[in-house]
Amino acid sequence: MSKPKGFEKPTGVRDYLPYAVKKLRKIERNVLECMDRWGYQQIMTPTMEYYDTVGVASSTSDQKLFKLLNNRGTTLVLRSDMTAPIARVVSSLLKEESLPIRLSYHANVFRTIEEEAGREAEFFQTGVELVGDDSAEADAEVVALAIESLKSAGVSSFKIAMGHVGFLHGLFEEIVPGRDDDQESLKEGLLRRDYVGFRNTIRQLDLTEAQGSVLDGIVRLRGGKEICEQALKLSSNRQARASIDHLCKVWAVLEAYGVSEHVLIDLTMIGDFSYYTGMTFEGYASELGFPVCNGGRYDNLLQQFGRAIPATGFALKTNRILDGVHGIEEAEEKRVLVQYDADRRQEGLAEAAKLRSEGYIVITELVGCSESSVPSEELINNEVTGYNDVFTFTTKK
Amino acid sequence: MSKPKGFEKPTGVRDYLPYAVKKLRKIERNVLECMDRWGYQQIMTPTMEYYDTVGVASSTSDQKLFKLLNNRGTTLVLRSDMTAPIARVVSSLLKEESLPIRLSYHANVFRTIEEEAGREAEFFQTGVELVGDDSAEADAEVVALAIESLKSAGVSSFKIAMGHVGFLHGLFEEIVPGRDDDQESLKEGLLRRDYVGFRNTIRQLDLTEAQGSVLDGIVRLRGGKEICEQALKLSSNRQARASIDHLCKVWAVLEAYGVSEHVLIDLTMIGDFSYYTGMTFEGYASELGFPVCNGGRYDNLLQQFGRAIPATGFALKTNRILDGVHGIEEAEEKRVLVQYDADRRQEGLAEAAKLRSEGYIVITELVGCSESSVPSEELINNEVTGYNDVFTFTTKK
Repeated sequence: MSKPKGFEKPTGVRDYLPYAVKKLRKIERNVLECMDRWGYQQIMTPTMEYYDTVGVASSTSDQKLFKLLNNRGTTLVLRSDMTAPIARVVSSLLKEESLPIRLSYHANVFRTIEEEAGREAEFFQTGVELVGDDSAEADAEVVALAIESLKSAGVSSFKIAMGHVGFLHGLFEEIVPGRDDDQESLKEGLLRRDYVGFRNTIRQLDLTEAQGSVLDGIVRLRGGKEICEQALKLSSNRQARASIDHLCKVWAVLEAYGVSEHVLIDLTMIGDFSYYTGMTFEGYASELGFPVCNGGRYDNLLQQFGRAIPATGFALKTNRILDGVHGIEEAEEKRVLVQYDADRRQEGLAEAAKLRSEGYIVITELVGCSESSVPSEELINNEVTGYNDVFTFTTKK
Repeated sequence: MSKPKGFEKPTGVRDYLPYAVKKLRKIERNVLECMDRWGYQQIMTPTMEYYDTVGVASSTSDQKLFKLLNNRGTTLVLRSDMTAPIARVVSSLLKEESLPIRLSYHANVFRTIEEEAGREAEFFQTGVELVGDDSAEADAEVVALAIESLKSAGVSSFKIAMGHVGFLHGLFEEIVPGRDDDQESLKEGLLRRDYVGFRNTIRQLDLTEAQGSVLDGIVRLRGGKEICEQALKLSSNRQARASIDHLCKVWAVLEAYGVSEHVLIDLTMIGDFSYYTGMTFEGYASELGFPVCNGGRYDNLLQQFGRAIPATGFALKTNRILDGVHGIEEAEEKRVLVQYDADRRQEGLAEAAKLRSEGYIVITELVGCSESSVPSEELINNEVTGYNDVFTFTTKK
């Protein structure tokens, strides 16, 4: 293939110019400070991990992992999320730490992409993991914190859709017991929100009319806590009923937090069902039209690192918030230009230092002598614009 | 080779636990705020770049670059510094921006390592680039800003050693004209600070006694501005003398900044001579015993991206500062535990929200009911320690 041009960068990655960095940094800081006040301590892990450990344990499918070889010939991956690396750390460096453990992070993660799709190969996630507590209280805490975090990030209007993978597991096991392929087809339809495909699958399953109508009714199981009561009527499967019972408890805690207005129960929501083991949720911003966070309970991950303890958490899709949210701008900066000639340089630089100590942004410039050999058409900054104030220290002639 | 164990991470990379993250974040923030006040605007670029563009242009030797293939089979690299990516951006997205351009960054960079050496494969740099100004004023500005940045990072006692690659280029061209291999051997000796090897090279060069003693004298060219006068006596080569003249001007500006007490001229310092084209400098912290920053002028880099303009800058070695500097800790945090039972949950959570809004770190805990199925030996957090205060909302029995 042709050599890339000098100014090109790989597909799916981006440069953040100063305006975007300011906004991203503001979101990062606000959200991390929010998580901090909830007792979540920030952690950082390496960009590269072993494929055989974190790569295999992560929820990202193999072909979406960026792989490279180290100089010993071992396969490494660029982290595709922070959940698996944190599971590794909790099982090693933090293995003596008492439970529950609350950790937060802001990190760039990597996924290979279809060249056509325009999706990002490197993007930011800001999130938490609450490790070692399998209660409804813990699930509600991370949902309530996700709500607070979205508010801190400047997302003003949003809904959290909350489901439970155990409900669908149980219900499907009740209706098409042992038929793993059929169950998988049903789940795939819901995961892709392909309700036409979901209904087609139902028709092909050779079910009684009652069974078909139960499955068909799932897609209407979205709303407030009344959805739990409706769902209990649909299934006598133990796992399905226990899952609904758990969601009811989470809802009660969210009411105590005073945030249930932001939450709706959506039992069609299944998340990544090879990964999540309980409650799952996604956040949708009404002004943005796409998910801005997702999370849930993943009680089987940590055992892959030798410490079989439950965990729940979420990640904000920080890039989507960056691109979609407005009105989180910084307070206006005061930019000052201090010009001086060689004779009054010391005076000019002292004034610059004083102004900086007072919080001003100060750019200094030597004027009145032209020792530069830079081509003059490049030196177009002599028109003094973009400053709140200009101080000039020159010797009168 | 054997499969890595679940808790292992690749050689040369590290996890940052909460205590280290707090310190790293504090350094990052202090330094970036300092750079911001000097008019340097923060930029972020992708972790992955094309090998044929940024990879080839970077100052990192080929075998030290981490390489990987994208799904089109094009070779990518993990960035090994931020200077080449910023040169790419200045030559593309910012090509209409008026000069000079002042940019700052805090970024992780990647270099493959010898397994034995214990050096880091991923580490942080915090730095600036001042693009489009080839004056002594610009070189002095970045040295003065490096000094302010080190202070902001909590490095209390340090020296900046400043040299000029043009002096050595010119002097060597005067004494062993056209003998590129010999000149390279001399430079290698200085670069590695291998003065025994340097003197051996001199003896093998078949020089007059006077010439040998001039070269031998270079290693003593370290000190204040008097070094410039001594150096001028050593060479009549035009490039060598122009370089010294430039350093004298930089020194004068640094005196006007009031920071020359931190600077010494060290004409043995050559930096990466395939990359730097003018003044170079390194910062040494007396308490640390290794370089904490380096920088210099690189006027030939940007033309590789199609915009032939001069540039100067520096990077702090943020990890070394993190590991070596103490006394930059955060103000003490106030951690509060709010316990509640199911009956008084709403009250407890409201109190937690109130305390968080007042800046406290608040962890909440449901007590008095044991619905958790986590093995009890893991739940050892019931001894209430590590909190400044505990609030309990339970129903008296």
